[in-house]
Amino acid sequence: MGRVSSVVEERVEETVGHVAIIGGTHGNELTGAWLVERWRRDPSPVQRESFSTHLLLGNPKAIQRVRRYIDRDLNRSFGDTPPTSDARDSQRPVPYEQERAHVVCEQLRTFRVIPDGALIDLHNTTANMGISLIFVNQSPFNLKLAAWVKERVPEAHAYLWLDETLPRRSLSSVVEKGVTIEVGPVPNGVVRGEQFWRTEETVRAALDFVEAFNQGLLSSDKRELEVFVHEQAVDFPRDERGRVTGFIHPELQDRDYEPLEPGDPVFQTLAGETIRYDGPETRYPVFINEAAYYEKHLAFSLTRREVREV
Amino acid sequence: MGRVSSVVEERVEETVGHVAIIGGTHGNELTGAWLVERWRRDPSPVQRESFSTHLLLGNPKAIQRVRRYIDRDLNRSFGDTPPTSDARDSQRPVPYEQERAHVVCEQLRTFRVIPDGALIDLHNTTANMGISLIFVNQSPFNLKLAAWVKERVPEAHAYLWLDETLPRRSLSSVVEKGVTIEVGPVPNGVVRGEQFWRTEETVRAALDFVEAFNQGLLSSDKRELEVFVHEQAVDFPRDERGRVTGFIHPELQDRDYEPLEPGDPVFQTLAGETIRYDGPETRYPVFINEAAYYEKHLAFSLTRREVREV
Repeated sequence: MGRVSSVVEERVEETVGHVAIIGGTHGNELTGAWLVERWRRDPSPVQRESFSTHLLLGNPKAIQRVRRYIDRDLNRSFGDTPPTSDARDSQRPVPYEQERAHVVCEQLRTFRVIPDGALIDLHNTTANMGISLIFVNQSPFNLKLAAWVKERVPEAHAYLWLDETLPRRSLSSVVEKGVTIEVGPVPNGVVRGEQFWRTEETVRAALDFVEAFNQGLLSSDKRELEVFVHEQAVDFPRDERGRVTGFIHPELQDRDYEPLEPGDPVFQTLAGETIRYDGPETRYPVFINEAAYYEKHLAFSLTRREVREV
Repeated sequence: MGRVSSVVEERVEETVGHVAIIGGTHGNELTGAWLVERWRRDPSPVQRESFSTHLLLGNPKAIQRVRRYIDRDLNRSFGDTPPTSDARDSQRPVPYEQERAHVVCEQLRTFRVIPDGALIDLHNTTANMGISLIFVNQSPFNLKLAAWVKERVPEAHAYLWLDETLPRRSLSSVVEKGVTIEVGPVPNGVVRGEQFWRTEETVRAALDFVEAFNQGLLSSDKRELEVFVHEQAVDFPRDERGRVTGFIHPELQDRDYEPLEPGDPVFQTLAGETIRYDGPETRYPVFINEAAYYEKHLAFSLTRREVREV
């Protein structure tokens, strides 16, 4: 067992030779797709000395149609077994995103990002989440990356989504060193210049971290990192037939990462009545009123705030 | 000719017996569809003494799928001749929205909104247009409605879209007394509580106007009305292959209805270069960065500001 532990420690010290940056995993989140287009014309903002950077569009067909996905959410389609030739031949067609997840993984293997490289997946949200660094595992690399980026982009928040709903199926889960950069508020189907440049600034900071990691320039001093740990999704109020009967309360709207206290308003019904938070303790909501999550029965997510030594 | 003129004047004095309020003409603009749901449960906010109010969902199939439209834009599908049975039988299916425009007009005739009633069509935009009252004709009724609403909802703007691109094909064009209430910024696929209630407030003011009109309570004093008159659509910068190469400049973003001077920044290219407004005179841009207009080659529209006596 001592030997295994020592191998793990050695691997943390290995350098990262390949980094993939993916835009357009959701086809109506334009910032990442347009940044990939920008960097394809001029890669200098994303090139570094010590590793190769690989640019990729996640869901080209959905980007073309400015839709989140064609058949199902690509960012919940990783971790499936690849479609078999049997499935391909059967009456029921393989969902486009299931095929696409397979193709993306093949490309990441070719780029040598899988298994030992790093991955940055670019997203937008209609929630007022500013710059969010979302991690589906809390490897030392990931938490140190978060601390580094937060020092350079102070408005950034680190959000650990460690439960079972996302981690095993998101694009960022295919490698250990993976981060989703979620930028909002940005409507679907729109590029907003300010958020475009702030996303690039965040990507540059993340790449500078990888560069410093590779060159052994990271300080070994411990520092404190504020993280928001996913606890549960909260659905909209619904009637007995399952139809939504209310919306985010104006007093909760846009207050992502701010404390939500027991008794605070969370929803307003179509009749104008207020529904209040009935949990026992302070929590920190995120993804408040994200358009794509209406279908996922997620009006907002509750997180708890923690401080980690990294 | 004197007789015709007198008939026109008499018709202005007729009362309005029927008002239709339509939500969800675009299926991903949720505010109007959810307000219709609210008022179906409790119609008291939209009932008045002197006329009947009729509630309608514009595009139920698109609302179901949270998409702007199924086959084509319903709000550009009015004014077509109804699909013939020949067309229905042919290989090429009739676009859903062409059928739907026909059905909506039939319903409006049944409600007796067509030809002599009034119509309020509810929309959302990702542009920072606040409350916009959009008219495709400048009948005295419409301009007086604008002045009345602006006195009660001071942030409202009156926008006259009188050119050939919209007026003949929009839902609000099927009657003379028609207004589109356009509320933003609201992302597609989202209800924001604040804008939900402000839309209701604006609808109530418009209905109060119809009530005062019917009861002969409108002042005959002339007053000044600020209007923004549509001049032209401005497309995104594109390369020789037609691909978009830039986005709204951060300094123009969210500045709808504010003066745009010659030389002001309007776009930023993917390379970071600034493109400036090269028109000769001050104009007032609207629909800045509306998601649905990327496909219509409309980055923003230029209007000129005028003051009318109404």
